[in-house]
Amino acid sequence: MKWVVDALENLRKKRPLVQNITNFVVMNTTANALLAVGASPVMAHAVDELEDMLKLADALVVNIGTLDEHWIRSMEEAVRVAASMGKPVVLDPVGAGATRLRTKTALRLLEAGRISVLRGNFGEVSALLGGHGVTRGVDSTVYDGERARELAERASREFGTAVAVTGPVDYVSDSRETYAVENGHPMLGRVTGTGCIATALIGAFLAVETPLKAAVGALAVFGIAAEKAFEEAPYPGSFHTKLYDWLYKIDSSILERYVRVRRL
Amino acid sequence: MKWVVDALENLRKKRPLVQNITNFVVMNTTANALLAVGASPVMAHAVDELEDMLKLADALVVNIGTLDEHWIRSMEEAVRVAASMGKPVVLDPVGAGATRLRTKTALRLLEAGRISVLRGNFGEVSALLGGHGVTRGVDSTVYDGERARELAERASREFGTAVAVTGPVDYVSDSRETYAVENGHPMLGRVTGTGCIATALIGAFLAVETPLKAAVGALAVFGIAAEKAFEEAPYPGSFHTKLYDWLYKIDSSILERYVRVRRL
Amino acid sequence: MKWVVDALENLRKKRPLVQNITNFVVMNTTANALLAVGASPVMAHAVDELEDMLKLADALVVNIGTLDEHWIRSMEEAVRVAASMGKPVVLDPVGAGATRLRTKTALRLLEAGRISVLRGNFGEVSALLGGHGVTRGVDSTVYDGERARELAERASREFGTAVAVTGPVDYVSDSRETYAVENGHPMLGRVTGTGCIATALIGAFLAVETPLKAAVGALAVFGIAAEKAFEEAPYPGSFHTKLYDWLYKIDSSILERYVRVRRL
Repeated sequence: MKWVVDALENLRKKRPLVQNITNFVVMNTTANALLAVGASPVMAHAVDELEDMLKLADALVVNIGTLDEHWIRSMEEAVRVAASMGKPVVLDPVGAGATRLRTKTALRLLEAGRISVLRGNFGEVSALLGGHGVTRGVDSTVYDGERARELAERASREFGTAVAVTGPVDYVSDSRETYAVENGHPMLGRVTGTGCIATALIGAFLAVETPLKAAVGALAVFGIAAEKAFEEAPYPGSFHTKLYDWLYKIDSSILERYVRVRRL
Repeated sequence: MKWVVDALENLRKKRPLVQNITNFVVMNTTANALLAVGASPVMAHAVDELEDMLKLADALVVNIGTLDEHWIRSMEEAVRVAASMGKPVVLDPVGAGATRLRTKTALRLLEAGRISVLRGNFGEVSALLGGHGVTRGVDSTVYDGERARELAERASREFGTAVAVTGPVDYVSDSRETYAVENGHPMLGRVTGTGCIATALIGAFLAVETPLKAAVGALAVFGIAAEKAFEEAPYPGSFHTKLYDWLYKIDSSILERYVRVRRL
Repeated sequence: MKWVVDALENLRKKRPLVQNITNFVVMNTTANALLAVGASPVMAHAVDELEDMLKLADALVVNIGTLDEHWIRSMEEAVRVAASMGKPVVLDPVGAGATRLRTKTALRLLEAGRISVLRGNFGEVSALLGGHGVTRGVDSTVYDGERARELAERASREFGTAVAVTGPVDYVSDSRETYAVENGHPMLGRVTGTGCIATALIGAFLAVETPLKAAVGALAVFGIAAEKAFEEAPYPGSFHTKLYDWLYKIDSSILERYVRVRRL
């Protein structure tokens, strides 16, 4: 997986500007994760400045975690502007399936622009395909390895975008190729916004890689950071702090040694 | 206080989904506290999804810390929907007494639905009873043990809800019974949102206990976590990190050993 | 620099209430920094409560980091009310130059009230003077010591306010006097909201000092906290945690020993 190593190095050389329209809960979290890994985050949601900001940005992250009518309008406009400028976009359909508003909004965003990567957990992606796998809140996941793989592939074909279904093993597909990323740690489930961090990191990698490889690379890097953080700090507060440390510390040799990515 | 131990164990077995309409400052903080203790947080404020989300939720937390007209509408609607579904609600009247808008909004929320627990500091609860104890900002408290106890009892009768007046000693009353919780640590005053964490934890305990016991249990658990965190880290940044560690680490034996709850 | 030591002591004696209208990304961060250093933060943005809250406040912080039409209205109203009450105001024009909306809003706020201190990086302050130094996102800075000093002095004359242009060396001018603050650490660039923390701390110092000295004192205290935090924790997550520890721990003897402030 030489290309994963190259992707991280290229990201750090480029120091991409990643524009985020994300939720109130994780704005701080995802900005810090982007800075730690070597990207440059910006958060802007006013419709009046989306065009100016997206001109400067290398990628757009859209996350519906705390949506309302005002923010939905910004998200739709941002996705449209990004499409017109050819900028890559990653979408995080937080809580799709939990409420009809979230499912509907995520589907409209998938149609409004050209989404490069869709990242969600099993319940969320399933809900977007019309499944009735209940999403229980936003942090929970119904999970089954083989079904998760199939779901990523099916969603990828359906939406014409790369799809990452994250869980104990992450499955990433662009309908032609599928990868499994086995890095990660269950303690991520005890810190809010770790799914959102994964999505934001995909945004950073989109500035230097194809959608499929951006998602795989970001999930591997984040998963390894989580593994190393847990080794140092097996409790959620300290683990959370160490996550940023390791997003900063991870380098080619750590990445080569710990990466567990399989092409299926 | 065997029931406090049982309440924590039951909470962790149930892993309740706690819906939060809270302020921008503490969304991340309270979500992480809920995850650390073993609950599952969700933050949603769009009126269009309140009903769907509350159907899934085991309890509702309403916190007026950064209110405006849009959020007030969401809070009122959420409180009404929760009442219609019989879901327990905890209200945090952040800054009541500091501005008329906050006092008025908290009073309207107390009338709009069926609040299970009201948690505030001395100045805030006093202001809701028409007192003119000045609330200086949102983190400060005028405090006097005997008056705090009386205030909890009086507010409980007046509003027909369990009331927790938190401070150096917390007093919790449902007008029939009153408890004092002596756990806690002054360093909590140097971290923003610790009152809001207490409220959110009460929300989690409301899924498994009566309002009175939910408030007592949550305050005891949080107070002990603060005491243990301070032992490890007597400075505010590190103390804050360790708070989440200890909300995760606290178990029956730690709880039994350190709990200081008295029935008055 | 005896007065820097006195300013910190006076701040801690007074425990000023600092009202913040700031961005979603850093609300938690700046509230914790204010608490750690010994001030009392409050966040309120509803137009209906600005007057009540500002009556209680010792200073106002306005930060345009995640602006939109609703928040801009609050900021303008807050700046006007503060002027009518004679309360000091510090303005952080986050991202000015990156989008026209930000540049325009910052300029309108400079005209709407009586700003005591304007704090920004080189690109932001330059953009407000009509410069075309590109602001790349919100965390980046074009920097050159001599030009930064000139910029602070020129902006100070132009806007009739004290101006702090922060970077590897911070330059602070009120057009009559100029200071250089050499404390700080590059790791601040890997944590989001550190510029916003600097601004918030200036707000706290404005309660006890002149605009020029408030800015110099706050930047020195924050810079030393960063230096000490880095000594203990050279990675961004842990460094961030230690920043709050050191804002709390810093005292007269540490300040005297490490302060690097020069009057130019």
